Amino acid sequence: MIDRREIEFVLFEYLKIQKLFDLPYYSEHSIDSVGEMLTSAISLCNQHLGPLNKVGDRVGCTHNKETKAVTTPPGTKEAYKQFVENGFLTLADSEEAGGIQAPGVIASVFMEIFSSANQAFTMYPGLTKSASHVIQHFGEDWMRETCIPKIASGSWTGTMCLTEPSAGSAVGDLRSTAKRAKDGSFLIKGVKQWISGGENDFTENILHLVLARIEGAPAGIEGVSLFVVPKYRIDKTSGKILDKNDLYCISLEEKMGIHGNSTCLMGFGDNDNCQGYLIGKENQGINYMFLMMNEARIGVGLQGLGQASVAFLNAEYYAKERIQGVDIAAKKDAKNPARIAIVNHPDVKRMLLRQRSIVEGMRALCYTTALMHDESEHGANDADKKKAHGFLELLTPIMKAWCTDMGFYSIIQSIQTFGGYGFTKDYPVEQLLRDSKITSIYEGTNGIQALDLVGRKMRMEDGAIFAAWLGKHGKFVEKNKDHKALSAEILMLGDYVGRIGKAAMHMAEIAKKGNKHAAILNAYPYLMAFGHTIICGMLLEQAVLAHEKLTAGNVSAGDKRFYSNKIKTAKFFTHHVLPEAKSYIANVISPDVSCLDFEF
Amino acid sequence: MIDRREIEFVLFEYLKIQKLFDLPYYSEHSIDSVGEMLTSAISLCNQHLGPLNKVGDRVGCTHNKETKAVTTPPGTKEAYKQFVENGFLTLADSEEAGGIQAPGVIASVFMEIFSSANQAFTMYPGLTKSASHVIQHFGEDWMRETCIPKIASGSWTGTMCLTEPSAGSAVGDLRSTAKRAKDGSFLIKGVKQWISGGENDFTENILHLVLARIEGAPAGIEGVSLFVVPKYRIDKTSGKILDKNDLYCISLEEKMGIHGNSTCLMGFGDNDNCQGYLIGKENQGINYMFLMMNEARIGVGLQGLGQASVAFLNAEYYAKERIQGVDIAAKKDAKNPARIAIVNHPDVKRMLLRQRSIVEGMRALCYTTALMHDESEHGANDADKKKAHGFLELLTPIMKAWCTDMGFYSIIQSIQTFGGYGFTKDYPVEQLLRDSKITSIYEGTNGIQALDLVGRKMRMEDGAIFAAWLGKHGKFVEKNKDHKALSAEILMLGDYVGRIGKAAMHMAEIAKKGNKHAAILNAYPYLMAFGHTIICGMLLEQAVLAHEKLTAGNVSAGDKRFYSNKIKTAKFFTHHVLPEAKSYIANVISPDVSCLDFEF
Repeated sequence: MIDRREIEFVLFEYLKIQKLFDLPYYSEHSIDSVGEMLTSAISLCNQHLGPLNKVGDRVGCTHNKETKAVTTPPGTKEAYKQFVENGFLTLADSEEAGGIQAPGVIASVFMEIFSSANQAFTMYPGLTKSASHVIQHFGEDWMRETCIPKIASGSWTGTMCLTEPSAGSAVGDLRSTAKRAKDGSFLIKGVKQWISGGENDFTENILHLVLARIEGAPAGIEGVSLFVVPKYRIDKTSGKILDKNDLYCISLEEKMGIHGNSTCLMGFGDNDNCQGYLIGKENQGINYMFLMMNEARIGVGLQGLGQASVAFLNAEYYAKERIQGVDIAAKKDAKNPARIAIVNHPDVKRMLLRQRSIVEGMRALCYTTALMHDESEHGANDADKKKAHGFLELLTPIMKAWCTDMGFYSIIQSIQTFGGYGFTKDYPVEQLLRDSKITSIYEGTNGIQALDLVGRKMRMEDGAIFAAWLGKHGKFVEKNKDHKALSAEILMLGDYVGRIGKAAMHMAEIAKKGNKHAAILNAYPYLMAFGHTIICGMLLEQAVLAHEKLTAGNVSAGDKRFYSNKIKTAKFFTHHVLPEAKSYIANVISPDVSCLDFEF
Repeated sequence: MIDRREIEFVLFEYLKIQKLFDLPYYSEHSIDSVGEMLTSAISLCNQHLGPLNKVGDRVGCTHNKETKAVTTPPGTKEAYKQFVENGFLTLADSEEAGGIQAPGVIASVFMEIFSSANQAFTMYPGLTKSASHVIQHFGEDWMRETCIPKIASGSWTGTMCLTEPSAGSAVGDLRSTAKRAKDGSFLIKGVKQWISGGENDFTENILHLVLARIEGAPAGIEGVSLFVVPKYRIDKTSGKILDKNDLYCISLEEKMGIHGNSTCLMGFGDNDNCQGYLIGKENQGINYMFLMMNEARIGVGLQGLGQASVAFLNAEYYAKERIQGVDIAAKKDAKNPARIAIVNHPDVKRMLLRQRSIVEGMRALCYTTALMHDESEHGANDADKKKAHGFLELLTPIMKAWCTDMGFYSIIQSIQTFGGYGFTKDYPVEQLLRDSKITSIYEGTNGIQALDLVGRKMRMEDGAIFAAWLGKHGKFVEKNKDHKALSAEILMLGDYVGRIGKAAMHMAEIAKKGNKHAAILNAYPYLMAFGHTIICGMLLEQAVLAHEKLTAGNVSAGDKRFYSNKIKTAKFFTHHVLPEAKSYIANVISPDVSCLDFEF
């Protein structure tokens, strides 16, 4: 289930992404072509990804302990084939890499839609795409020439091998090693954990991007290099597949959800014969991997959005269908009480509108962030690119953490609307809850996102980028504070923007005093408060726009309803969700640090 | 895992429940005897309930479509036997009913402990106990004489059959019927859904307490009667089991969790031959069932506590063991960085202390509520009983909803502390998340608890009980506002108590104006704000007590640490969790009701 009207509103009315089509790089695209792709994506979901979602959850992946082979859920191979053939793998790639140079913001819309239909499956092409981008950017010529076409055609997939059993968030503690071989390649040895799509039965080969330390390299993150390690060795010029490389899937993780994706514990070089090829320069691995990781973080934010969106739409649909109870405001007629659909109960309305406002807020934030990515790479001039890049960096951790945590909370409310049925496998929401829990953890836990925001992103250019972003909201408030329909809410936003700025200064002062622990103690509550404020700003911008459209007149009945609801959604968020930012800020500015010397 | 020191603190130092032992009804008990039972309960968990928890989840219950038999997870029969033989089924029952007349607050402690070890299993004796209580209170003499001993000995279990496929929250819409038979019994016909323990393979017989409408009875809840419907027909005098009654398990629900409990769709009277016996008077069924439901709601609150508590203790244990990352405040030594246990990372400390404060707050609330129950039944005089009964009624919906929702949120944080491991079946927290999700739904959804609080409980005696409860907190604030160590926090509490009172008046005014929908729209946020305030009050009372103990001196090193941590926990809650009440209240007092005319 998707809300196409809402998606198109955000893309073409709110963000006006059609402006991108004036840039040379994107000139082949148009609103119409995007619409066609959207139709094709929906059809792919209905025919393949959707039906596979339940099968993937119930059947899951299996591991043969003898052969080490992994069997993915029935239908995965065909779904992957259709995914690639419909052009969704390479959509945003350059023409020379086999793509059609669609804006990343469009690719993001599809990521949301595909994740909403089937998160576990979408991770296979998602990580493959990221691996491909790393090779495109930093790989040797032969990798680009030999591997990229194989990936683009759907013959090979890719993975991201960072984590090890004792090196999770602290990537620099990894123990995997790389030994120089005579032919210039490396012999890789180590164990990698939580490798999504680490083994599969639907592609000819898998390219693992593996972080390892070359013998003699420095300790810590400074001594980590990145390698391409193929499942089957390859002829570097023809791309022909040779014999099996010395690596295998040791076991599959037993997880709460995303059973359709093979999460592998991978062993490399058990026989000291695992061939890998260095990407870029030695000891620069983490920098290359960051490209992949930043993309992945945006991808995870979009998963949060997609899953929450489909959970909300399911709950909304159910609430309109399910008859239960009577209207407490209706006159009582014991013999023939007028039973109502539960959408009419105030508490259900409250839960649904809360979810809707969170989902639409996430969408505004996600698409905006994705647009910044496009503008940072293909903007009209260097100044535009630089500005967009700064905002992209600032927004990425917020998008990742806010969308996954608020998305998860929103899914909880879907289950509540379904009542007992929400706890059963009769409806999709229980699987959505289980599948989505991973999003707050992988690609950097949300606690780490908060440290990234407070410790690095807000300090970029001495805080200038952060200040510029707050300034954007400030200007909006200044311009619209006397708005006919929304002035109360816009003034509330202004109040919160001020609080966000002050709380940031408060944290900076603590840091100045040298108490490093206290300075980062409330990074997470700060991120959440900032997220609430940004989302509120975006929803109110949308509401002002909706109000303009309504007052301009000449709108269809459907649009009238759509725009009116947009205004109500923004009002609801401002009055009923935004106040949570104040309690998060209370954490940040509280004098109490009882936590730090607590004896656990 | 349990925190025995904390449990004993709440019972004997904070609530001083030993005062109950002065009452004649409880005179057989002492602090020592409670301690012995506690040791026995822990041993039962370690030997039976704990090991069965994982098996129950992985193996689950199975249903034979031919025979309609249900197989419970291996070990269930033995666990039930041990549970009964150790006296935990009848603990709080009167001596004449085969019990040992332990205070209900003690039984509640065990409910918490058993739920923390195995929620799915604990539901079998939990519902059996409730069914037994209904029969003890309202049943015919033969039921009491024949059935109660069978239940007490562990030979028979009981269930609660309210819900039907189209009558969930709206119980009065049920379609099950009861037809008078010649022998004074009734023929029951209908389908009941979500029947926990509806069928099992570990007891001789099952007594289903079934709500149904006698032919000719009024529509709605006023025409609903309660029946005992045995799985096997029984000889009313000897209790001997006769032939199979006309009822069976149609199917098992496929659920997100609590797989160890058989959640049945039950068919009664397919062959028009399902014998049932009326309990009490005709058309009074819901009143009798309410006894069971109120007990069950307290039980569910305790499940919320138990599950959150064990999740927290697991996360705390893991955080102290798991080495990852370096201390950001330590001097950097790239060659040999001092890696630390993750409990030392400020963000992890923050999550853990948040959980701890929520868990300890829940425990204070749960045990207090249970104590009110004891005092309402066996208090020294009628005035005491009446007062306790009023508070019991007021606190029950808060305890049920706050402990299950905040408990669930707390479990989410346990998973976050475990990182990727938290998403896998390697550790117990993922099962805890899945098992506990049901608690916000069953025995009245949390939305319904909020309506009960705002629509009924706060209005009892024209609001006098509500006012008396707030007054208790007010007096504590007044008395301790100049407290040496806690005055800032106690003044904050006072501020929130005031806000809770004002928000209640605001809701009353809306109701007076006749806008019934607006008046209940924010019942849930109100319940949460009220819960936060009550919990804060209780934690600060505990902190004041801990401070007294510390200043009185002569405390062991272990107690010094315990009391100091109690103070820090209360401070943390006041500064970092209580502020959320303000955002909930913002919902209640907001002029925005955009929600009510939203067009979904």
